[in-house]
Amino acid sequence: MGVITITTDFGHKGPFVAVMKGVILSRYPEARIVDLMHDIPAQWPPEAGFWVCRSYRWFPAGSIHLAIVDPGVGTERDILIVEHDGHLFMAPDNGLLGQLLDTAASARVYRLDMARLDLPEPSATFHGRDIFAPVAADLAAGRVSVGDIATETQDWVPGWIDEPAAVAGHVSGVIVTVDTFGNLISNIDATLVEGFAEPVACIAGHQVPMRRTYGQAKPGEYLALINSFGVVEVARAEGSAAEGLGSARGAPLVIREKTGGQ
Amino acid sequence: MGVITITTDFGHKGPFVAVMKGVILSRYPEARIVDLMHDIPAQWPPEAGFWVCRSYRWFPAGSIHLAIVDPGVGTERDILIVEHDGHLFMAPDNGLLGQLLDTAASARVYRLDMARLDLPEPSATFHGRDIFAPVAADLAAGRVSVGDIATETQDWVPGWIDEPAAVAGHVSGVIVTVDTFGNLISNIDATLVEGFAEPVACIAGHQVPMRRTYGQAKPGEYLALINSFGVVEVARAEGSAAEGLGSARGAPLVIREKTGGQ
Amino acid sequence: MGVITITTDFGHKGPFVAVMKGVILSRYPEARIVDLMHDIPAQWPPEAGFWVCRSYRWFPAGSIHLAIVDPGVGTERDILIVEHDGHLFMAPDNGLLGQLLDTAASARVYRLDMARLDLPEPSATFHGRDIFAPVAADLAAGRVSVGDIATETQDWVPGWIDEPAAVAGHVSGVIVTVDTFGNLISNIDATLVEGFAEPVACIAGHQVPMRRTYGQAKPGEYLALINSFGVVEVARAEGSAAEGLGSARGAPLVIREKTGGQ
Repeated sequence: MGVITITTDFGHKGPFVAVMKGVILSRYPEARIVDLMHDIPAQWPPEAGFWVCRSYRWFPAGSIHLAIVDPGVGTERDILIVEHDGHLFMAPDNGLLGQLLDTAASARVYRLDMARLDLPEPSATFHGRDIFAPVAADLAAGRVSVGDIATETQDWVPGWIDEPAAVAGHVSGVIVTVDTFGNLISNIDATLVEGFAEPVACIAGHQVPMRRTYGQAKPGEYLALINSFGVVEVARAEGSAAEGLGSARGAPLVIREKTGGQ
Repeated sequence: MGVITITTDFGHKGPFVAVMKGVILSRYPEARIVDLMHDIPAQWPPEAGFWVCRSYRWFPAGSIHLAIVDPGVGTERDILIVEHDGHLFMAPDNGLLGQLLDTAASARVYRLDMARLDLPEPSATFHGRDIFAPVAADLAAGRVSVGDIATETQDWVPGWIDEPAAVAGHVSGVIVTVDTFGNLISNIDATLVEGFAEPVACIAGHQVPMRRTYGQAKPGEYLALINSFGVVEVARAEGSAAEGLGSARGAPLVIREKTGGQ
Repeated sequence: MGVITITTDFGHKGPFVAVMKGVILSRYPEARIVDLMHDIPAQWPPEAGFWVCRSYRWFPAGSIHLAIVDPGVGTERDILIVEHDGHLFMAPDNGLLGQLLDTAASARVYRLDMARLDLPEPSATFHGRDIFAPVAADLAAGRVSVGDIATETQDWVPGWIDEPAAVAGHVSGVIVTVDTFGNLISNIDATLVEGFAEPVACIAGHQVPMRRTYGQAKPGEYLALINSFGVVEVARAEGSAAEGLGSARGAPLVIREKTGGQ
């Protein structure tokens, strides 16, 4: 379909994303480029991986997803290309794609072979423009296949965040990101909380009831819910849960059965 | 023409707008999607309606305008589709389109009939992705018509802001939005101030002269003018009127004839 | 190729860029529009010129680059169209394109002739929508040529920033912009520092060593490097050089040979 998504920590100041688009359009004018997001916190690759992993299924099969949060750019780190579920993913080998690779048993993982690329010498600091963009354009255009430019591998840098653990009636996860509204979004998948009769979310010393929609809490009340990306989210009705709870990325979140004493 | 515009309060953090585009492109690869804006303040639908109403005419006839500021998502609120002036508008039935419906006598208003959509069960919290995006794609692609999926209605939630009142030489309106430069933008249409010989704008205890361009005021001076969207705007030359006047959304604005005593 | 890039100081609040896109798509549905950036500080045209000048080569030949930082909109200022290196550039005649015109000897410069445009009367305050967008669409569509609508000229408003001076082993430049990470980006081209054996960057009382990549400094250390746009940049490893040094746009930067005493 020629769709290429771009996820970075470049922010919106400067032409960094734009020149990547220029390179893509120069090599493949029919590309349809979608900005996934560019506000990933610098030095926090797992959030990029989380969103790419939770978003890709809404794009056409055959889409290519570039994710560039790359504190090691210019060092010897490699670049991975992953084939999974009819999509391609391309990211630095720094743990960014950890969540995808931990959960996608059928994924095929390749290591980009720079020697097989027919590209000018890349800059030391902007591989997004000099490697990711032209490679994505050539893949999207069908001029090269993954096998032409990359070698399959079983070995990669692991993710930075453990997959949620479910033991003894507790599910333990972590807040991966915070959205514009201050909602705290975790890595706990909906399937992990299906077995509870009356689950509560424990975070920052609070015990928050699980609801179906934001509208089921009164203004100011906290609630947890399965959000539209299929993970547990902690919100505050007409307010910011992040501010109210003093919680942020990395905070632990536990789901357990409500106890009688509450 | 296949143009779809998107206006939301989703901000720029997170992939929320991007996955809407993914859904649109999955169903209608030829769509041309334009972000109108995503910084509408949460809980303030009238600003979305104002900008859509004032912007649509610059897009090709046949464009579809999605506006999603939707505090009631997941409750029983309906979704409206409006045909007006060769364009389609789609928004929650929460007053967002009030200004358009108050002023567009020839508009035809429809209520989306969920039972006639061939869509998977929508999430409780993200109708932008699960309803608005696929419906817009199908309408833009010409696969369905409005009549196929919606029922005409004469009944909708009214707008949150009264249309400007012109009585006894006064025109009373309200500040609807504030732009990046701190300009205060009102809902008072240019046609309402045409009859004045020497109009002044009264706001926050100040009396501000009307000018033709920003350049007609000295640095630091306030001025009012008819802006490029055809409404009265209060600005400060080389400064922020919002900061200087301590004014914001919702502030009353009166236009009247300049009096001798000033 | 039909690519049009847009650079402005409009920010991301409001539909200002979007309606420009609407006008372009109304006149030329095949246009491929790329946002270069919209966070240029108001009243600081040189930054727009800098980025356009440093970015255009990554776009397809034949692209049209609109750059609109225009404090004089509505006054008698002219609009320039520049042909250079197979690209077109369009900007207010206010010095914005100074850097391009100072360094591009072969550029041909034209002054837009409003009388030869077949456009509705433009608004006083939004020439981006009323002049730049429709002219760019018509040029991109091949409906008009530059010579049809503009007159060649040798005379324009000079740039706001002097080109770097290289004398007596010193290269003197200026910080033009600061990126999301707080990196200080100067107008000193890589070619001007090639002759140094061990160059240092002098800024805000600090003497900062030049390195090849960010990774060659320890966390917290300052470094200078040739960035991916071919100019000297001052950075701080895992930190913000702008905050740490208290430097910003306009700060002087000198490159010279490291001296023994350091």
